[in-house]
Amino acid sequence: MNYKMMGRFIGLIIAVEAVFILPALLISVCYGETVAAASFLYTLAIMVLLGGILLMSCRKAGHIFGATEGLVCVGLGWMALSLLGCLPFWFSGEIPHFMDAFFEMVSGFTTTGASILSDVEGLSKGLLYWRSFSHWLGGMGVLVFLLAISPGGKNSGFTMHLLRAESPGPNVGKLVPKMRQTALILYLIYIALTIINTIFLLCGGMNWLDALCTAFGTAGTGGFGVRNDSLASFSPYIQTVTAVFMLLFGINFSCYYLLLLGHIRGVFKDEELRLYLGIILLCVIAIGFNVHHMYKTGAETARHAFFQVSSIITTTGYSTTDFDLWPGLSKGLIMMLMVVGACAGSTGGGLKCSRVLLLFKSLRRNIRQVLNPRKVQVVRNNNQVVDERILSNTNAYLAAYIIVVIVSYLLISLDNFSIGTNLSAVLACFNNIGPGLEQVGPMCNFSGYSDFSKFVLILDMLAGRLEIFPILVLFSRSAWKRR
Amino acid sequence: MNYKMMGRFIGLIIAVEAVFILPALLISVCYGETVAAASFLYTLAIMVLLGGILLMSCRKAGHIFGATEGLVCVGLGWMALSLLGCLPFWFSGEIPHFMDAFFEMVSGFTTTGASILSDVEGLSKGLLYWRSFSHWLGGMGVLVFLLAISPGGKNSGFTMHLLRAESPGPNVGKLVPKMRQTALILYLIYIALTIINTIFLLCGGMNWLDALCTAFGTAGTGGFGVRNDSLASFSPYIQTVTAVFMLLFGINFSCYYLLLLGHIRGVFKDEELRLYLGIILLCVIAIGFNVHHMYKTGAETARHAFFQVSSIITTTGYSTTDFDLWPGLSKGLIMMLMVVGACAGSTGGGLKCSRVLLLFKSLRRNIRQVLNPRKVQVVRNNNQVVDERILSNTNAYLAAYIIVVIVSYLLISLDNFSIGTNLSAVLACFNNIGPGLEQVGPMCNFSGYSDFSKFVLILDMLAGRLEIFPILVLFSRSAWKRR
Repeated sequence: MNYKMMGRFIGLIIAVEAVFILPALLISVCYGETVAAASFLYTLAIMVLLGGILLMSCRKAGHIFGATEGLVCVGLGWMALSLLGCLPFWFSGEIPHFMDAFFEMVSGFTTTGASILSDVEGLSKGLLYWRSFSHWLGGMGVLVFLLAISPGGKNSGFTMHLLRAESPGPNVGKLVPKMRQTALILYLIYIALTIINTIFLLCGGMNWLDALCTAFGTAGTGGFGVRNDSLASFSPYIQTVTAVFMLLFGINFSCYYLLLLGHIRGVFKDEELRLYLGIILLCVIAIGFNVHHMYKTGAETARHAFFQVSSIITTTGYSTTDFDLWPGLSKGLIMMLMVVGACAGSTGGGLKCSRVLLLFKSLRRNIRQVLNPRKVQVVRNNNQVVDERILSNTNAYLAAYIIVVIVSYLLISLDNFSIGTNLSAVLACFNNIGPGLEQVGPMCNFSGYSDFSKFVLILDMLAGRLEIFPILVLFSRSAWKRR
Repeated sequence: MNYKMMGRFIGLIIAVEAVFILPALLISVCYGETVAAASFLYTLAIMVLLGGILLMSCRKAGHIFGATEGLVCVGLGWMALSLLGCLPFWFSGEIPHFMDAFFEMVSGFTTTGASILSDVEGLSKGLLYWRSFSHWLGGMGVLVFLLAISPGGKNSGFTMHLLRAESPGPNVGKLVPKMRQTALILYLIYIALTIINTIFLLCGGMNWLDALCTAFGTAGTGGFGVRNDSLASFSPYIQTVTAVFMLLFGINFSCYYLLLLGHIRGVFKDEELRLYLGIILLCVIAIGFNVHHMYKTGAETARHAFFQVSSIITTTGYSTTDFDLWPGLSKGLIMMLMVVGACAGSTGGGLKCSRVLLLFKSLRRNIRQVLNPRKVQVVRNNNQVVDERILSNTNAYLAAYIIVVIVSYLLISLDNFSIGTNLSAVLACFNNIGPGLEQVGPMCNFSGYSDFSKFVLILDMLAGRLEIFPILVLFSRSAWKRR
């Protein structure tokens, strides 16, 4: 285990966080929020100190860096990010309980959007900004950011391991031969889309801070709102704009790169994108029919159905209506969408459409093999044969996914909430959605859970964002044993 | 598709059923239940007629019989078995609604034990016997029975396909080189254990019909009780005997064969058996601690915990207490046990312990492969390397399992029951347990669901008993297209 290299990386992550906390400090100062500003300053001091120590003491790190180090580094890096990031909430007393502040911050960085706050509007502006900004940074990934701005050069081996560990989806591809440039292109697309989204929101009459925060939550598919009722009290225009942008941020970013290069036909032939859009369309129609009696007009029904479907499949978690009041079928579809999730290579969570596609195709292959034992069957995706190792990893991911869901469910069921509450809480955290159903529904929050359950859900959120293995490896003896 | 051969097989299945319905008719006659006796007679007439026509018209069947035919044959055979078997309930008017009678019979043959009856004690004796006997026949399988009594000889190819399709577990092994003898040995062990169980129950003061019915339900891991409160009002002795025998019937029957041959050490080294017993022990302890405040003495707590765990993991579904009133953790463990299920090669349902073991091992292998990409890793079970095809099929089974659960949940959620009710109803039917939680808990029944939902649950029960593929293949176009 190359501890020095890991220390260096975690130091760099803290340095990046220290830079990004500055705008929040500035906003606090501008709004004259002295308590918040002071807590940002204290946090900044701790970050500079800790980051400095790590960077100074781990200067002479070697270059040997394997898959294990990559996974551990990402797991620990995200822990550090959240532990330091939650300090302003705790110092300022706006979230007086440390575990609550930690929960809120992990929920931010993992783009979950599950909150323990019942009164979001009571937060000071600086903290509100910082809370939403964490979605944006966590959405594309802080290590991807580090790669994008790093000078590059010798260490291409471990950058690949890091990117693999932090990026969602069964198969991380490079857009261009160099990893660093891939990261840069991804971030540029991300920034451009976020700016366009903000402009659209400003046109709808939002003030600039609300627009920025909402755009951050949309871009990172996070879901922290700026109002207590999420987006329910905003205008239909704002709701529609947000629904469309959520959908866009749930698409594989390499599609946008291909669009920019002019490969329009190739993009729309992508099987994952077709599945993603197909599921959205089907669910909007099914839910629309199922809930139409609850709203006045067809347009209102369609808007609410589309918004909620787009919000849940992209794992954002904004809401415009209390979908916990919807009938059973719609709630079932919502839970299914939680599991399916967005496209690989997007900022969304869940199993990812590409994994769902591979699981279906590999199942179909196995059925065919049972019926025709003598014929060798392969799985194809976008007309290319899928490597058996990717299939095997996808199946292992499904098994790990189910084990995490079952174990988490059992652990939090010590709190004696209903089956629906516990199940949807686990699914909402693990898939990085935010709101669940019943006691953790869109109009409720997670404050009712015990500290132990909150910690379990924190691990779920991290495991969901980092796709299980970086968190699982932290608990594995063999990862720490190796030299 | 060899339709003649399939017709012949279904004719044989009906003939077997006609023979086995005779004792039920006899009991009805002895107890002077004229209506029930008449409905058994009508049913018998239909069976003889239908079976006769099928056997006569399909006499000249060829011998070409592949995996597809095996799957379709098993699927259709079980449908026919249940459709004919439910007629006495419907004819006699004791279950006036046909779909209810069909549900009850499928629940019987698939050894589920989910009931739509609120007053079991009101059933006539003949029907009560027939209802419980269906568990016994369905437990080991009617086709396995056919093989055991068939003259054998030329058709060893398709007997293998049939046995594979009807027998539970990821890898159907032969005890002895000949398939027919394997089936015979299995049935002899099954009969012997059932007789021993009945004797134990008779010693506890049960009357002979109750003892027989309870033993049938235990042997087939079915769970239809003879009283409205299942086994709650029977003595602790009867409850303990039943708990132990449920556990025994959940063990792979080849273990008993090895025991008879004297390979005692080999049996207890079996990894699946160890996992099965380990899960039971852990769950009894955890549930015991979780529910101890609800019962007067430690012995009572232990008895209820052991009984319920043994009943659910073996997918029997008897109960001695209303576990729906247990706290969240215990209910969560109950749901987990529903999914895990008994050992492969037993009469129990669920995923099966051996599959759970393979899924864990294959997950561990994949994690190791991520950490050491250069080293080739294999999965071992009982010190033998597991074939990659079995691993791939086990993973495909998990994917199919999840798809069935999600689709069934969505379909029955049209009835607007709670999440816990719907989820546990699907798990209880699909894993062939019987009772679920909340509205379908051990003190409730399935009569509240609509006919459509009942039909979905019927398909789930069949899919669970036959391990998905024989039922899935019935809906696949390619299975019917082939010549």
